[in-house]
Amino acid sequence: MNILITGGAGFLGTHLARTLLARGELCGRTLTSLVLTDRVEQADPAVGNDSRVTTHTGDLLDSLPTLFEPPFDAYDAVFHLAAAVSAECEEDFSLGMRANLATTEQLLARISDQGQQQGLVPRVFFASSVAVFGSEPDIPLPHIVTDSTLPLPQSSYGIQKFICEQLVADYTRKGFIDGRVARLMTVSIRPGRPNGAASSFLSGIVREPLTGEPCVCPVSPETEVALASPENTIHGILTVMQASRDELGGRTAVNLPALTVSVAKMQQALIDVAGDETAQLIRFEPDENIARIVGGWPSRFESARAARLGLIPDASYDDIIQQYINALA
Amino acid sequence: MNILITGGAGFLGTHLARTLLARGELCGRTLTSLVLTDRVEQADPAVGNDSRVTTHTGDLLDSLPTLFEPPFDAYDAVFHLAAAVSAECEEDFSLGMRANLATTEQLLARISDQGQQQGLVPRVFFASSVAVFGSEPDIPLPHIVTDSTLPLPQSSYGIQKFICEQLVADYTRKGFIDGRVARLMTVSIRPGRPNGAASSFLSGIVREPLTGEPCVCPVSPETEVALASPENTIHGILTVMQASRDELGGRTAVNLPALTVSVAKMQQALIDVAGDETAQLIRFEPDENIARIVGGWPSRFESARAARLGLIPDASYDDIIQQYINALA
Repeated sequence: MNILITGGAGFLGTHLARTLLARGELCGRTLTSLVLTDRVEQADPAVGNDSRVTTHTGDLLDSLPTLFEPPFDAYDAVFHLAAAVSAECEEDFSLGMRANLATTEQLLARISDQGQQQGLVPRVFFASSVAVFGSEPDIPLPHIVTDSTLPLPQSSYGIQKFICEQLVADYTRKGFIDGRVARLMTVSIRPGRPNGAASSFLSGIVREPLTGEPCVCPVSPETEVALASPENTIHGILTVMQASRDELGGRTAVNLPALTVSVAKMQQALIDVAGDETAQLIRFEPDENIARIVGGWPSRFESARAARLGLIPDASYDDIIQQYINALA
Repeated sequence: MNILITGGAGFLGTHLARTLLARGELCGRTLTSLVLTDRVEQADPAVGNDSRVTTHTGDLLDSLPTLFEPPFDAYDAVFHLAAAVSAECEEDFSLGMRANLATTEQLLARISDQGQQQGLVPRVFFASSVAVFGSEPDIPLPHIVTDSTLPLPQSSYGIQKFICEQLVADYTRKGFIDGRVARLMTVSIRPGRPNGAASSFLSGIVREPLTGEPCVCPVSPETEVALASPENTIHGILTVMQASRDELGGRTAVNLPALTVSVAKMQQALIDVAGDETAQLIRFEPDENIARIVGGWPSRFESARAARLGLIPDASYDDIIQQYINALA
């Protein structure tokens, strides 16, 4: 099985690559080749040096000819994780329209074309986001988001993700691909440095204090958020990718399970695990722009479809911090 | 005020042009220029010969440079009605992706660019469709569709319309355009000839018998549909276009009001208005493909937002037939 991961050098992409290489299979078929494409280079040598791995570096839209024109091995499965993040897209409309919309449009056309040429229906996973949800004056966001809640994206990033969900659904309905979409919750705790995502601080306020660095929290302590650990997110992606069409129950995006937690509770969990002094490195400095974006995301989910697939939220934020510390060790 | 109508030679486009020319204003501003673009020529001489009208014939995507490059007068308002219809898009995936998706993407970028160059925020109406609604195994279509019902498009046409709704909402949120979207119900009775739309017969089964011609009805008599007369549809379009943002209550598409009627009731109305013999020209010959598409559309609506704008359904199908006969006279 030949697998392509876009955004393959990103945090989730690399984590997914490691997991796939360790499993050695997907959907019961042996993994023979894994192509990772990203605009930055693969930083994990254990991934980059695996004999099954080919890495490709460059802008994804510009790279499509290289990735899909002869000679290339047809992809049996594609994980499309690459995206410009929410705050970037809010600042630069054209960037999001290119990196998130035009790129996905052309990627789907390429995957579909190669499938038709090779007589196969490639399995495709698209990573959507909780950012598709929002409210408008006439249609408030329900207190609990269910599988039939109407997405009303309030950011360009959310709009672009929601549009791509529709494209994947229609390519799938037409039989060009076997597409699956999951809406990822905010992943916490991401390792590394802050990025341009409005949700970046939801990793930073634990990650930075744990290394003795201060971190600014741009929202109030009572702000509730819907989080998932990296492990649980990768488990969700692989479960949705491997489920049968019957198990999926439809082409609409699956809301992955979420742990609902307030920022104050995250701070308390940090006290529990690492002590008072560490947690005091969180400094609250409200940023209206980020508070508005994050406050517009839903924080409570009833994800019945995900539950039918056996997916459940992380048990507690203390567990999530412990998982992060163990992964570093 | 300089207005552009895409699909301006189509049935609704021509009807809208006639209405605008007769009113002589939009949003309280005098209509000075009306540009009509369509891939076919304007057939109504009263429209084509009006001194305020300029007509342009050609594929819309190919025509954008001509319509938007100097010298041209900036458009204060655009009605984007042009589209490839549902059955066409189902048969030819590329056609719909080009005519409905790529064209709208590039049209919105052009309108937005000209607005920014001229320091104006053009008012834009986008005609979406009841075809955005549908059901999936895990999320059935509710018996009554409300303003917060989740669209689950089950055709490429519906997917493309729904995607364009999202684009208009985001361009509006960014302040590039002042966009408004209404989901049009199936328009009955359209004059002229059958077209490629799956809903074409919903005009044909009355229109053809009234001129003594037989017409095939591809669905069963008990099939319920949501209809609106041409007059009521144009009234809905103009009301949504002229409403203030506060009155609209959000950027999400407004479901226009619909008269729910079964095909049997339509047949009965034809008997009432034109007699038994005329109605016997309807021949029932089930077409699985069309029955599946039409049967997947919702037939009952509670359109609270439309009602707040003063929009109500047609009173009865008898009225709709009478309106059609009067328009021909």
